[in-house]
Amino acid sequence: MNTITSLEQMVKHLCSIGVNKRIAVTVAEDENTIGALIEAQEIGFATPILIGNKSKIIDVLAGANAKAEDYKIVDVPDHTNAAKEAVRMVRMEEADVLMKGLIGTDKFLKAVLDKEKGLLPPKAVMSYVCALELPKYDKLLFISDTAVLPYPDLNQKIAMVNYTIQMTKKFGIDNPKIALIGASEKVNDSFHYSTDYTQICKMVDRGQIPNCTIDGPLDVFLACDKKSVEIKGIPTPINGEADALIFPSLESANSFYKGLMLFGGGELAGLIQGTIKPVVVMSRSESQKSKFYCVALSCLMA
Amino acid sequence: MNTITSLEQMVKHLCSIGVNKRIAVTVAEDENTIGALIEAQEIGFATPILIGNKSKIIDVLAGANAKAEDYKIVDVPDHTNAAKEAVRMVRMEEADVLMKGLIGTDKFLKAVLDKEKGLLPPKAVMSYVCALELPKYDKLLFISDTAVLPYPDLNQKIAMVNYTIQMTKKFGIDNPKIALIGASEKVNDSFHYSTDYTQICKMVDRGQIPNCTIDGPLDVFLACDKKSVEIKGIPTPINGEADALIFPSLESANSFYKGLMLFGGGELAGLIQGTIKPVVVMSRSESQKSKFYCVALSCLMA
Repeated sequence: MNTITSLEQMVKHLCSIGVNKRIAVTVAEDENTIGALIEAQEIGFATPILIGNKSKIIDVLAGANAKAEDYKIVDVPDHTNAAKEAVRMVRMEEADVLMKGLIGTDKFLKAVLDKEKGLLPPKAVMSYVCALELPKYDKLLFISDTAVLPYPDLNQKIAMVNYTIQMTKKFGIDNPKIALIGASEKVNDSFHYSTDYTQICKMVDRGQIPNCTIDGPLDVFLACDKKSVEIKGIPTPINGEADALIFPSLESANSFYKGLMLFGGGELAGLIQGTIKPVVVMSRSESQKSKFYCVALSCLMA
Repeated sequence: MNTITSLEQMVKHLCSIGVNKRIAVTVAEDENTIGALIEAQEIGFATPILIGNKSKIIDVLAGANAKAEDYKIVDVPDHTNAAKEAVRMVRMEEADVLMKGLIGTDKFLKAVLDKEKGLLPPKAVMSYVCALELPKYDKLLFISDTAVLPYPDLNQKIAMVNYTIQMTKKFGIDNPKIALIGASEKVNDSFHYSTDYTQICKMVDRGQIPNCTIDGPLDVFLACDKKSVEIKGIPTPINGEADALIFPSLESANSFYKGLMLFGGGELAGLIQGTIKPVVVMSRSESQKSKFYCVALSCLMA
């Protein structure tokens, strides 16, 4: 397949391969979520299952000029129960993707993380990867972890790398260039990430993490800007052309992508990996467009 | 004074108040540094003192069509000695600003940090603040710490806040809105910065840190985007109009500003505070324009 270099291309690719995935939506009662799902169903890659207060859901559908009879609606007004039902459907393979609607993230994740009835296998690492589209970068930039792991340890970082490789593969990138991000390229163990990064690089050398080209620590300039690599003369196989950035802390990944959403014209799609099926968790403040791209990404990954 | 909202305005302001500061430049042998200083001297706010290998300095000046006789040159070819001489000049008040040229940062900072002959008072916190100009933000955004403190503790964070207040005051901002940045606005002590931030907020309430409006933790959206504040309904005096962002780690501040330089059309000026006089430290890979703005900022702060 050709490499997918934009979020619109991702949507076109989904249509071209004829994917149609069932999305179990927990508390599907807000306009942005419903709007995104209507668009996804009309384009044809998703079949939403709207779980929540049925009369509210019908009202929001009507507000978006959609017919209630075109949608599968499951009436579970209580939020906790709606989350449990959505998770159950995914476990029972009645749905392919779990999505959060107008429910508190804590309540939602409690159902996902339930040890007996949840979606996370024992000892699995749950992490968030997103694909960021930037007008000034000529391909998508995959970023981890922008939402879940506060301070990933070595095993969590390795999981982040592996999830990123799984995701980039779906975009037609067989050997992604992954930069392990720090404040500079110097190895220095007064930076907590330095020892983890050097171990990961050597693991890749040894074939313990296949199918990627990796280097770190690298700063954002050396990861994403060829000119900086030339001027500084640092030999790195990433060479200013990173496909993916692994950040050492939530605060760094989160601030990086939010800065670029606000000031760099960025658009993104993201989801939780590590669970048995993709989980879409978005903030209430995210746009309908972002929610649509997240749904599309989840259908690509499911 | 009127508030300065761009780096060009900063330069105009410097000219209008008739500032002229002496810059001791350590190993002034590269084109970008010399070019920035020629421009600063011609505009009139700086008088460079070029320390290094005299014949190399004269060559670079000639290459920039500048006459050697228009510049004060001090012939100290050895890098370590050049750094010592530049620091001595600043200590003896023969210069107002110290600037790094084509010398390794470690060697340069060793002279700055020398306990007997350096520029850092005992127990003072050295930190880096920069003013970032973004096409999509209607004022300058001050950011700390992008270059020096890896993981600032409470006292270092307080110093960062105070340095930021000192700097914004020079830009005509008497009560800066300072956002303490985290991955979210939730107080949660599994994030290392959360307890420091809440203490700093209460210190501001008690008048222990005067002349600012502060809040945190806040994410970048709540700090810099009014719409996000409205949608999320979080009451914060920052209200999406932050003048300054304090980051909890070097990796987060550094990645944030580098992302915006690459993908957000950013331009910046920055320097080291905490020393008895401003210290300009820039990477070899920075442009002449950035170096020029750093020199201008140092003259404003000296």
